[in-house]
Amino acid sequence: MRLHVANPNATPAMTDAIAMAARSATGPGVEIVATTNETGPPAIEGPHDGAMAVPGLLDTIRCQDAEPGTAAHVIACFDDTGLDAARCTARAPVVGIGEAACLVACQLAPRFVIVTAQPVSVQVITDNLRRTGLGARCEGVRAAGMGVLEVEGAGGEAALERALGSAARDHPGAALVLGCAGMAPLATAMSERLDRPVLDGVRAAVALAEGLSRQGLATMRAGAYPLSRDVRGRA
Amino acid sequence: MRLHVANPNATPAMTDAIAMAARSATGPGVEIVATTNETGPPAIEGPHDGAMAVPGLLDTIRCQDAEPGTAAHVIACFDDTGLDAARCTARAPVVGIGEAACLVACQLAPRFVIVTAQPVSVQVITDNLRRTGLGARCEGVRAAGMGVLEVEGAGGEAALERALGSAARDHPGAALVLGCAGMAPLATAMSERLDRPVLDGVRAAVALAEGLSRQGLATMRAGAYPLSRDVRGRA
Amino acid sequence: MRLHVANPNATPAMTDAIAMAARSATGPGVEIVATTNETGPPAIEGPHDGAMAVPGLLDTIRCQDAEPGTAAHVIACFDDTGLDAARCTARAPVVGIGEAACLVACQLAPRFVIVTAQPVSVQVITDNLRRTGLGARCEGVRAAGMGVLEVEGAGGEAALERALGSAARDHPGAALVLGCAGMAPLATAMSERLDRPVLDGVRAAVALAEGLSRQGLATMRAGAYPLSRDVRGRA
Amino acid sequence: MRLHVANPNATPAMTDAIAMAARSATGPGVEIVATTNETGPPAIEGPHDGAMAVPGLLDTIRCQDAEPGTAAHVIACFDDTGLDAARCTARAPVVGIGEAACLVACQLAPRFVIVTAQPVSVQVITDNLRRTGLGARCEGVRAAGMGVLEVEGAGGEAALERALGSAARDHPGAALVLGCAGMAPLATAMSERLDRPVLDGVRAAVALAEGLSRQGLATMRAGAYPLSRDVRGRA
Amino acid sequence: MRLHVANPNATPAMTDAIAMAARSATGPGVEIVATTNETGPPAIEGPHDGAMAVPGLLDTIRCQDAEPGTAAHVIACFDDTGLDAARCTARAPVVGIGEAACLVACQLAPRFVIVTAQPVSVQVITDNLRRTGLGARCEGVRAAGMGVLEVEGAGGEAALERALGSAARDHPGAALVLGCAGMAPLATAMSERLDRPVLDGVRAAVALAEGLSRQGLATMRAGAYPLSRDVRGRA
Amino acid sequence: MRLHVANPNATPAMTDAIAMAARSATGPGVEIVATTNETGPPAIEGPHDGAMAVPGLLDTIRCQDAEPGTAAHVIACFDDTGLDAARCTARAPVVGIGEAACLVACQLAPRFVIVTAQPVSVQVITDNLRRTGLGARCEGVRAAGMGVLEVEGAGGEAALERALGSAARDHPGAALVLGCAGMAPLATAMSERLDRPVLDGVRAAVALAEGLSRQGLATMRAGAYPLSRDVRGRA
Repeated sequence: MRLHVANPNATPAMTDAIAMAARSATGPGVEIVATTNETGPPAIEGPHDGAMAVPGLLDTIRCQDAEPGTAAHVIACFDDTGLDAARCTARAPVVGIGEAACLVACQLAPRFVIVTAQPVSVQVITDNLRRTGLGARCEGVRAAGMGVLEVEGAGGEAALERALGSAARDHPGAALVLGCAGMAPLATAMSERLDRPVLDGVRAAVALAEGLSRQGLATMRAGAYPLSRDVRGRA
Repeated sequence: MRLHVANPNATPAMTDAIAMAARSATGPGVEIVATTNETGPPAIEGPHDGAMAVPGLLDTIRCQDAEPGTAAHVIACFDDTGLDAARCTARAPVVGIGEAACLVACQLAPRFVIVTAQPVSVQVITDNLRRTGLGARCEGVRAAGMGVLEVEGAGGEAALERALGSAARDHPGAALVLGCAGMAPLATAMSERLDRPVLDGVRAAVALAEGLSRQGLATMRAGAYPLSRDVRGRA
Repeated sequence: MRLHVANPNATPAMTDAIAMAARSATGPGVEIVATTNETGPPAIEGPHDGAMAVPGLLDTIRCQDAEPGTAAHVIACFDDTGLDAARCTARAPVVGIGEAACLVACQLAPRFVIVTAQPVSVQVITDNLRRTGLGARCEGVRAAGMGVLEVEGAGGEAALERALGSAARDHPGAALVLGCAGMAPLATAMSERLDRPVLDGVRAAVALAEGLSRQGLATMRAGAYPLSRDVRGRA
Repeated sequence: MRLHVANPNATPAMTDAIAMAARSATGPGVEIVATTNETGPPAIEGPHDGAMAVPGLLDTIRCQDAEPGTAAHVIACFDDTGLDAARCTARAPVVGIGEAACLVACQLAPRFVIVTAQPVSVQVITDNLRRTGLGARCEGVRAAGMGVLEVEGAGGEAALERALGSAARDHPGAALVLGCAGMAPLATAMSERLDRPVLDGVRAAVALAEGLSRQGLATMRAGAYPLSRDVRGRA
Repeated sequence: MRLHVANPNATPAMTDAIAMAARSATGPGVEIVATTNETGPPAIEGPHDGAMAVPGLLDTIRCQDAEPGTAAHVIACFDDTGLDAARCTARAPVVGIGEAACLVACQLAPRFVIVTAQPVSVQVITDNLRRTGLGARCEGVRAAGMGVLEVEGAGGEAALERALGSAARDHPGAALVLGCAGMAPLATAMSERLDRPVLDGVRAAVALAEGLSRQGLATMRAGAYPLSRDVRGRA
Repeated sequence: MRLHVANPNATPAMTDAIAMAARSATGPGVEIVATTNETGPPAIEGPHDGAMAVPGLLDTIRCQDAEPGTAAHVIACFDDTGLDAARCTARAPVVGIGEAACLVACQLAPRFVIVTAQPVSVQVITDNLRRTGLGARCEGVRAAGMGVLEVEGAGGEAALERALGSAARDHPGAALVLGCAGMAPLATAMSERLDRPVLDGVRAAVALAEGLSRQGLATMRAGAYPLSRDVRGRA
């Protein structure tokens, strides 16, 4: 089984980190193909970056979707950038890491709290939670106050740990959700240090995507997600 | 005062109709400048069209925002396509016709019902209502079952009247909201035939935008809508 | 165009301040007529004052509604006292400053916070937000802890600034909404000092009311707001 | 124990019917005192009637509250007209029949449906349900389409039975709630004919009020319901 | 009238305290019969204890329901343990003390806050509030951090007073609700010390149950609460 | 990897069918162990059956949890019977098929509709949706009107197809969710006949459970799901 993980931004180092996290959460016989959106912004920080990333992201999805054996796509930005449009672009199912992380968190605790990188992302994530209904399970969305591309440095790791620790203290019964794809490499270490589940959307999404494929499920075309004209036009 | 009305699709006839509706709802001394998004799809039907329209739409907004005297922008698609990104792109306030129509409907009746053109738009609009909180006032979102570009023909007008009439019968206490910018020319006739308020988002949005400017109000930059890097970089 | 701004309380100095704010937010050719409810309480602080103010308020609305050229009415109490009853009393549309301020705030930021004068008003405003659906956008309703008639004195201005500043710190992404008509004269100064939008319902409501009239819209009579028997009985 | 049941309208025959229903639901040693609001409208149909009824209603409550032994007040209009203001007027607790009927219905079935007399009352009741939170349990609010004062005639009884029967068919798992004080005399007969609980707010409210008194509970003064100035002024 | 108060846990001293509270809130001619669930856990702390208590609890209810004159049952655990199952087991109505306390609190203040004993109960109570709709009125659910069986000791009383006092300061407009049946003996003292209503679910539930019986109301069988096969099988 | 699928009822044929569905949705190297709750009711129809099934269900979970290599548990009743208690009983994560089916449905369509077997289950499922927040995505819960053990017969299959077809017509944009574990064998056939996704909770839950294990995630113990005393007492 071949799963496509699409990094909507233009930073290849982030794609590599995402691919490694993805590979750690899949079963035997699953191949992870990770792509970078070369025409996207270096990082997605806020609604303007998100909107500008979508056309290039849809190109990578359309391209990978045409490859034989592609079973599902994962959009590796916690904002679930372009998720609905991608579902209209791909024949295979599409999973967003933001929604996936929250769904999986709900299996481990009744409530969760999200820690993202930038304040500008808080409202984007909050809006997504309203649409998915999962806001009812979310005790808060916070920003650690660092750039998306600063997460992996030593300062970033310390700042993230401080922000997660503070969230854990304020929300003693809530699972922690990492609100940025760039945080994926730190999930395991943070979970150990804070002694509670720390959810990474990349792993959550590839596991969900693998499961969708094993169940033989496909995006529903009637209603919200018809295939776009250009895709329907292909053989 | 100069108000920019941005048609996010590439159909100039629709831009003309929108501009005419806009001019009918503004006070003395207000100039309406309407633009067409030449790189957008002919019509916006669903999330894929919406996503592909945004970069070109933001270009027209950035360009008009730099014109002296531009007091506000209106995005003339009921899906409020790219609204948050536009608020990060323009120095002047930005109003979406979908949210505007619903807000104004709430001044005339406690509840409203929306009739859009295409079934694929129902979920886009429903999601927006969840984000804005106005879903609590909305009794339903329906599709008349016609293409966006078919609204103005004779068949389109009849189909719209049937759909509005049916919505009025099923929701006897609700104002009617036209869920597509292309329906703007028909608002007055439909209101007379159905004997209840029929809201057109284009008129609602330009009236709101004019009011924002008279109150001297500007988009709040802290939080969700910081100016994007490229705009900040300009003088 | 003639807009009637009704002060539901009996304090003429407050009526004057409200009228001045109203005039600052309207376009050319708009006349503001402001009335005082001589039989009302000196200030509306809580549900008892609100209930007792309504019959006199409806009298001023009925009277001004009969004047030729009255295009709309504004109820200048943030509690939106008697709003539904007024819509059943006037032939012209009626806008409440509480709902108007919140609607306009939603054009500038995704979230807002309200600062009113008295603790007893917090629940009245909270209940209104539940009815309008705008509670989904509201991060909190606070009281500055001063009498309605104390707002304009030097102590009142300082206390309001402290309360707004505290709300701004606790809600870094939210627009500020003044939760009392008596605060209208301070809106511009507060916005400058706090460097974010500070919404005044009086200005918001007259701008909305002017816009309703320019769109040719009228209160919907079927359903919730039939004209009351006594008004229907008039020629 | 003395319970005051206040009929907010001016129709003594309705007061008599309400008093009889009230007496059928109280325990030994409870005296029901029922008053008519002589300055109110003949019936409360919509928000205008409701607003005009409140000052007279508050007078009867203030007067009865001063009588020794008054343990609680019931407002016998399903709209819960003036409920918050009454709580600021009386030293004893105040129960509204609309909220009471819904609370009691929730003890018998997970969901309920309300049948009121006039379409104009549907939104008033719907707004109350939003404020109380009980809208989550309510499957619908319907109007039987008769005047409040027509309920007790032969035609009224037949129309009510038709409306309740239709609601029962459409909502097979919901208890039925009578949405008008004038329907109180018909509750038992309707419950027998339709073979499911039919809730009458008058009985529900006096039972709740009796229970409040037996528990020694009083309206909370801090926050929303301070005693009004004039009552505080009395000895 | 005979009311059955079922203590779902196996601690007879708690049953005695509950029975005493129950007797203080009923009218003349009401007999309280209190039972202990001998096969239940010593105290119900969390969902596991709750689930294990239900079969024994249903036995006591089935048994008491067969006694002549039993008018209603009260489940004396704030978690409303087994409430729906009990409604399918008893011919007489069943009231849970958790829902009852919140319903009665809503008659005294627009909002309430709950203080329970153990952190593990917070989510159980929160889930119940979501199901009943009363979460809209609840400002928070807190744990005092003591075992259910420690409440009545001197340390327990002091800890409860601290927790209630802290809740009162943080929620100045909210009634206080005791979130554990074991707190019933302390309600009156706490209300006096904190000078605001302190609701005890045991008293609230028996008063509601007595009222249901006086109104002649019975659990609705169509829909959610059919009588279970074994009860139907009895004569 | 060993996954335990617990059938909470006492019908071995249903356990066999559930195990077969589970095996069809797992990856290489996953072993499914299915157990029958021998002390449970033959089928779970309503809250009384559900409550009586839990102690035996927890026994099977406790027993399987002690087996080396058990990676997760699945509760194979759409009511998610005893889910929270099970999370307090097992060291491994626990997934309920009701919540799992709805979560997976949300990856394929923005909305879903549930078709269960018995009317008595509608409220149980509705209450669960309120607790999980997924009610916001659910357009309705319907009963096909057959016994849980009748689903697999020829008449059951025809009745289910009729009920699903009717749900599909009424909800043209919603995925279909099978609301009963006994329907698992029919999922693929129904999806083909109705040409849209038909979700089976058994498959959804085992796929989720496998994914949880691959991500190395465990139930969070702080807050809602502490290990019960008896399990903690074991080595």
